Amino acid sequence: MDIHELLTAARAGSQRATGRLLSLVESDRRDDVLAVLQSRPVRTVGITGPPGAGKSTTVAVLVAAYRARGLRVAVLAVDPSSPYSGGALLGDRIRMAAHINDPGVLIRSVATRGHLGGLSAAVPAAIRLLAALSYDIVVLETVGVGQSEVEIAAVADPTVAILNPGAGDAVQAAKAGLLEVADIIVVNKADREGADQTVRDLHIETGMPVLKIIAAENTGIDDLVGAIDAHHRTDDPRRRAARARLQILSLAQSALRTHPGLAELSAAVAGGDLDVYTATARLLDGVQVTPE
Amino acid sequence: MDIHELLTAARAGSQRATGRLLSLVESDRRDDVLAVLQSRPVRTVGITGPPGAGKSTTVAVLVAAYRARGLRVAVLAVDPSSPYSGGALLGDRIRMAAHINDPGVLIRSVATRGHLGGLSAAVPAAIRLLAALSYDIVVLETVGVGQSEVEIAAVADPTVAILNPGAGDAVQAAKAGLLEVADIIVVNKADREGADQTVRDLHIETGMPVLKIIAAENTGIDDLVGAIDAHHRTDDPRRRAARARLQILSLAQSALRTHPGLAELSAAVAGGDLDVYTATARLLDGVQVTPE
Repeated sequence: MDIHELLTAARAGSQRATGRLLSLVESDRRDDVLAVLQSRPVRTVGITGPPGAGKSTTVAVLVAAYRARGLRVAVLAVDPSSPYSGGALLGDRIRMAAHINDPGVLIRSVATRGHLGGLSAAVPAAIRLLAALSYDIVVLETVGVGQSEVEIAAVADPTVAILNPGAGDAVQAAKAGLLEVADIIVVNKADREGADQTVRDLHIETGMPVLKIIAAENTGIDDLVGAIDAHHRTDDPRRRAARARLQILSLAQSALRTHPGLAELSAAVAGGDLDVYTATARLLDGVQVTPE
Repeated sequence: MDIHELLTAARAGSQRATGRLLSLVESDRRDDVLAVLQSRPVRTVGITGPPGAGKSTTVAVLVAAYRARGLRVAVLAVDPSSPYSGGALLGDRIRMAAHINDPGVLIRSVATRGHLGGLSAAVPAAIRLLAALSYDIVVLETVGVGQSEVEIAAVADPTVAILNPGAGDAVQAAKAGLLEVADIIVVNKADREGADQTVRDLHIETGMPVLKIIAAENTGIDDLVGAIDAHHRTDDPRRRAARARLQILSLAQSALRTHPGLAELSAAVAGGDLDVYTATARLLDGVQVTPE
């Protein structure tokens, strides 16, 4: 099937066709797909947080809440170790399994270059594709603590940080720069000891309201959906331009870091054969924005 | 005076001429200065840490230790709020004042673009200039917690993180990504309560040896100098190439972030007139490595 046939099949409900199109936007045929897509606004939500905080459980109940509202939902797991691509706990799989046969829900992992590689170049294109395929909301889930958590804030709006009671998660989130980029902070497993103290500490640290949920019991999810809705309603051109700026810089960073000439230029500088300014100029001169 | 005359005067001991040359490498005449400099190896040390950790006091006693060994020392304070350019506590000024009239010590602040701007483009050139002027060691001091702390690791080797007893500094350092880039971790004010616990916590967190000093009493400084020396002795081409790579990427990042076309490209993406890949390609296409 060519791209037009795949789009037709995907619009008719073929998740297999959608999957093949998502693979194409991760490949060097990305531009061919983008060229035939109509631009359509889509709501995005980023779900980040340390491992074990309950991100997958939260995503599962969020998906259910959006489905109950009649919205079509796509989940992109932005990490190679994501539950959806192999590293799953059985519990996560079971929770998401409720949505596996729902044609209004798409679940897909997106390859990344790891936490130092900048934004996965495929992510903005994948979101545009899912928008064109009439998904109403795209949930981006990151796994682990690292740069990917921060990069996701360039495309997701709002970015929701899921943390647990106790100091450990807060420190990890701070370490990852997550508290600075989060738009909504959520303490999950809020029935555990110390939850109120963690909520207070996070509020003092960030100056932001902090929500309490118990995702596994579907408690507090309406408030979370409400906070996400409120954030979407207040979007404006200035915030969109700020995200676009972050995306451009992050894609540029990815292109620079993965440039095949960088190692040689670095060795030349280290060996005293080239000054670092000339090396930088040469790197910038030769960089193309290519798929990963 | 032209550049050659300034170099002659600086070599003859004129700190005023050295200051003017450092101003030139921060200006659009940087390349003119670099073009006439002979390359000469120089040792660098980065001193970073949260505000109040005792960086300036540590730098002052380090400078004294190097002077006692007959080495010529240059201190570059990489921050606009540095003690040397205005934001000083009186105590810091008094401690550094011991070196003000010593012709073997140069103290100078370097303008930066703030913590999001990437490496100050002037810093690698300033180090090359100071090397050519026969300084034996360049101490780079950063102030505050932010990206500049991490960027300094691209040029300094080793990077020394100065922290205080208690959890506060460790969390701040973790937040700034400092613990990941530090080569040597130092707990200053080690006579305070909780110092041994902080040393243990930092050792567990980082897997690195952690030194204890009391900079204000000149205690532990010989061990710190020894650790810095040991790090210099083990430098190798691989580590130099890794630093060169970080410098190139950081300078490129600075050039991208400060590009005059970025705002317009971001607005075009936000408005749906341009896709983010084309915007990134145009940005990379038009970027020059210019002075800040």
